[in-house]
Amino acid sequence: MRFYSNRLSGNCYKVRLLLDLLGIKVEEVEIDIFRSRETHPDFLARSPEGKVPVIEFDDGTVLAESGAILFHLACGSPYLPDAALVRSEILQWMFFEQNQHEPSVAVARSLQLYSEPGLEREVSIQAVRAKGQRALGTMERHLKEREFFVRDFFTIADIALYPYTRRAEEGGFSLQPYPAVRSWLGRVESVPGFVPFVTEGPVEIP
Amino acid sequence: MRFYSNRLSGNCYKVRLLLDLLGIKVEEVEIDIFRSRETHPDFLARSPEGKVPVIEFDDGTVLAESGAILFHLACGSPYLPDAALVRSEILQWMFFEQNQHEPSVAVARSLQLYSEPGLEREVSIQAVRAKGQRALGTMERHLKEREFFVRDFFTIADIALYPYTRRAEEGGFSLQPYPAVRSWLGRVESVPGFVPFVTEGPVEIP
Repeated sequence: MRFYSNRLSGNCYKVRLLLDLLGIKVEEVEIDIFRSRETHPDFLARSPEGKVPVIEFDDGTVLAESGAILFHLACGSPYLPDAALVRSEILQWMFFEQNQHEPSVAVARSLQLYSEPGLEREVSIQAVRAKGQRALGTMERHLKEREFFVRDFFTIADIALYPYTRRAEEGGFSLQPYPAVRSWLGRVESVPGFVPFVTEGPVEIP
Repeated sequence: MRFYSNRLSGNCYKVRLLLDLLGIKVEEVEIDIFRSRETHPDFLARSPEGKVPVIEFDDGTVLAESGAILFHLACGSPYLPDAALVRSEILQWMFFEQNQHEPSVAVARSLQLYSEPGLEREVSIQAVRAKGQRALGTMERHLKEREFFVRDFFTIADIALYPYTRRAEEGGFSLQPYPAVRSWLGRVESVPGFVPFVTEGPVEIP
């Protein structure tokens, strides 16, 4: 199995964390997402949008979208129990993350870290600010009475919501108003086998 | 089973279409999403954000997010086959829809139809225009060689992508450059038991 990934991407980190927890070995290919057209023609043939993460199975089948990859890899593991309603509740939080949290909390961080400073950037960040605060508020209310997002055990719903929440302050969101969210971040980081989301330091790009 | 819904919402329509196709009878409760705080205190106790669709099971369990509801209801039906990789490919397109298509194609329509005209609205619509065109372009390339999104049969991936694509022109997106998408819309509408997305006409709000 091959894993097309980029170290700066929280969506890729989610897949890497699950692979580590499950002890699945893959060939990881680092994609320079800012220069994929020039540097990775092979990858673009598999994923015409140049988006990561993408998993390529040994028979050449390709699966994209972090949520679908997490679901696929976690099936049958403790991180995605078989019980139908539990599984659907996990998907509920994963769709919440991709529809309401990632397009606001992650997009603000991405703009702040990787786009040109200036008025246009500030307007774009402000446009997602309220949506991000609503998403963090929803998480706070839910976690006030729970250890993890679904049925009080660690699942791929927690993996999906962790990285961009952990890095929310890089997009200008304070986590001070969300004590239950902060406690939950600590619980995720205490899960046996947890590996952190590291974006600093050198990386080899083939 | 109770189905909290709003007739103007494409996300609610997806659930209604699947319920109809499966022949599942529910108690449908129309929620005035613009005035839910005053008019639906019972509903807000179940869904604190006032968002629809929400399904409430007879034991009081609640499930939100259209993608999770579609997945839950379709399990074991022809619209969501059991084969693991097929199911994951269906989820791939459903996550694509909620992360890249709905926040652009549906948001532009919602701004155009339901927000005050003016500069602020135009700036907001322009901000999602390019993302929406990319999403429609991705659909077009994929559908050029296929009848439906996954493995050439109609699934909940098609249900998820149908309504906001069908109404994309209401948000200012022309479908002229996307002939494969237009053909696919027609194929969805020819599925036995299909019911259209109707937003006009009177509706009873309890």
